[in-house]
Amino acid sequence: MKIQLLMTGNELMSGDIVDSNSAMIAEKLKNIGLTIKRKVTVADDIDDLINEISHISQQANLLIINGGLGPTTDDLTAQALAKAANVPLVEHKEALEHLSAWCNKKGYELTGSNLKQAILPQGCSLIANSVGSAVGFRLTLNNCDIMCTPGVPSELSVMLTDVMLPIIQQQIPKEKQAHTSRLQIFGYGESGLQNLLNEHFHNWPKALELGFRASMPFVELKITSYTTEAKTLKALWISKIKTLLGEHIVHEISDKPLTMANCLLALLHKKNKTLTTAESCTGGLIASLLTQEAGASASFHAGFVTYANEIKQRILNVPSNILEQFGAVSEEVVTAMAEGALQKSSADLVIAVSGIAGPDGGSNEKPVGTVWIAWGEKGDINTVCLNIKTSRWYFQLMVANICLDLIRRKLINTQQTPRYFIERKAN
Amino acid sequence: MKIQLLMTGNELMSGDIVDSNSAMIAEKLKNIGLTIKRKVTVADDIDDLINEISHISQQANLLIINGGLGPTTDDLTAQALAKAANVPLVEHKEALEHLSAWCNKKGYELTGSNLKQAILPQGCSLIANSVGSAVGFRLTLNNCDIMCTPGVPSELSVMLTDVMLPIIQQQIPKEKQAHTSRLQIFGYGESGLQNLLNEHFHNWPKALELGFRASMPFVELKITSYTTEAKTLKALWISKIKTLLGEHIVHEISDKPLTMANCLLALLHKKNKTLTTAESCTGGLIASLLTQEAGASASFHAGFVTYANEIKQRILNVPSNILEQFGAVSEEVVTAMAEGALQKSSADLVIAVSGIAGPDGGSNEKPVGTVWIAWGEKGDINTVCLNIKTSRWYFQLMVANICLDLIRRKLINTQQTPRYFIERKAN
Repeated sequence: MKIQLLMTGNELMSGDIVDSNSAMIAEKLKNIGLTIKRKVTVADDIDDLINEISHISQQANLLIINGGLGPTTDDLTAQALAKAANVPLVEHKEALEHLSAWCNKKGYELTGSNLKQAILPQGCSLIANSVGSAVGFRLTLNNCDIMCTPGVPSELSVMLTDVMLPIIQQQIPKEKQAHTSRLQIFGYGESGLQNLLNEHFHNWPKALELGFRASMPFVELKITSYTTEAKTLKALWISKIKTLLGEHIVHEISDKPLTMANCLLALLHKKNKTLTTAESCTGGLIASLLTQEAGASASFHAGFVTYANEIKQRILNVPSNILEQFGAVSEEVVTAMAEGALQKSSADLVIAVSGIAGPDGGSNEKPVGTVWIAWGEKGDINTVCLNIKTSRWYFQLMVANICLDLIRRKLINTQQTPRYFIERKAN
Repeated sequence: MKIQLLMTGNELMSGDIVDSNSAMIAEKLKNIGLTIKRKVTVADDIDDLINEISHISQQANLLIINGGLGPTTDDLTAQALAKAANVPLVEHKEALEHLSAWCNKKGYELTGSNLKQAILPQGCSLIANSVGSAVGFRLTLNNCDIMCTPGVPSELSVMLTDVMLPIIQQQIPKEKQAHTSRLQIFGYGESGLQNLLNEHFHNWPKALELGFRASMPFVELKITSYTTEAKTLKALWISKIKTLLGEHIVHEISDKPLTMANCLLALLHKKNKTLTTAESCTGGLIASLLTQEAGASASFHAGFVTYANEIKQRILNVPSNILEQFGAVSEEVVTAMAEGALQKSSADLVIAVSGIAGPDGGSNEKPVGTVWIAWGEKGDINTVCLNIKTSRWYFQLMVANICLDLIRRKLINTQQTPRYFIERKAN
């Protein structure tokens, strides 16, 4: 199948945004064994769009157009496709129904500019969008199946998975369908993981393709088979990988990737435990990662953001002499924060964290990236000091996920030493 | 000047990496008033590369090719350009000197595969690379100036700034340089903003280009002039937009976009005020947005995530009879949360928020999306009830940013009613 992409948007040509949609499309297609031959990106220019659509439709079997479906006047995809296919633009009944239902649900009025989204090339069929107002649509031109998709990544993602990929997959013979297994791994970088697998699996079978993708905070490991026989082989080698990596595998994706908070909340719920947080350098991010998940309230009741020393003292009862003697970034202080948070919240489990996120605030003894973490339960608090040298945001994100991972590891009762205790150990 | 990009690399087609190089090139060109007309991306395939080079060289004045300059066999740019231009590949004296010097400096030996990088299309000139081994080069074909650049972002960046942009800029007359102003607007959606501007500015001048870009939580409004006369016009119309939108304009971008937390922290710092947060439905996100910014510690000392009722009571002293009588999502409870947080933290200003993020937990009286916000200072707490029907994450993100905006508005002492008080008002 010859597949091409046409990406449209002034913002893609101006450098204002980096195009991550085309990588998303490519990845999802690759999971069903398909590759993209060529990608063209143009601004919101009607003539350029018409030219590209006409030209590509003569070369490709499938053209996915992304962007230009919105309500504003610079959204031109429907108009361009109609011109290229030489059909009129007409009000599409189903599209109008979708928009009405959407506006109704949101409590908006269906106004003039939104109505534009229901004016589509005659003869096109809808591509359902369950999460947004934009209407995806599909038309055949020069024997090329043209699918028009919205630029909003979350809408594109759902549309691809739920509607487009099943349609596209039907066109591949069963014995040639690719099967991909995906593992979410926490604690290894991409190259570290690749080196480890190279070292242990000299005889990795040629019929299985191995792929690595950084997907913060995880590395996603993909194992793909392209034949029916290789599918059996895949199961065998996945079990070998599981033995090698152990609890560094946080989740094996069946439906969609999980977050670390997802995995942890499921465990907390299963074991009927509650968790509290006492955050300094992560500044509420751990609490926020947990509460982004629906149902977090069952296991998470209270979090403390104690950014200033005086607040650590006043809210979490960290003794002032400990703060003075050891400094806010110390084993003694995170331990006292953990104990204070447990006492104040009555939670079963606790994470406490204090570190230097940077870019300022470091010293020779405690450079930027230094972080003390305390985790555990009443009477059983563990601590570790790590150094995570990166930007402020990645420091916070990595530290927050390490904290969640430490509670996850405690709940599954593993004896395995996490890789980051070795690689990220502070001197 | 008609500019096109040709991006090459298997990794760009597989979805394994997101192409940020083309955005970098576009942004740097935009800084000197140039826009890219079209971008084509193909894998490392010699025939595809030859075809694209031949085709684009007939349409464009400038073609920047990125990638495929490395030492491995899948780096094909020199070969493809030589074929397209019908010239032989020859050893390039200066390129060889560059490579020798580079290897010398690094203590490497100049091996066979590296030597390949000095074999270039006959007649090309070098584009100096001061930071890497890859040799950039330039050749004219069909009156199109073709510049070949390396895929390593740091090398590309230096080459663009130091060598290529000065060459390109010489070719633009001063009076034709573009100027763009960008405003970050909070409280309007893309289509709402467009409708408002359409309604108020019937006589919008044709010489000014208006662009809208959703950039959560903002909409970015871009006004571009392409001539010296239009530049004066732009200043006039921007002042009209400022009058119309007032404090919905959070920031006018001079260097790079700011976050809402950036803007608020700058104001807090200027006014020497501290802020505390008492979060239920946003679960720590407001605190996290603030502490993602370096220097937050000057104005933010303490945050409370009081997710459970019992914790609201115990940590923030919300009276149990109020919780029982009015429920957690009520004016009375957020007011008490705000007062409790002020008292516990000794901060000057407070945000307190309690709502139903969903997807579950709604009722007829208080549907999913309902949120009570209290903000202000001791003895002067304001409240509002809004309804924000969207996904859990966007609810949290919008509510958190509205909370930050309310403190921002308080600090700048505006009397203007924010748009979201009208559009998002709960019934």
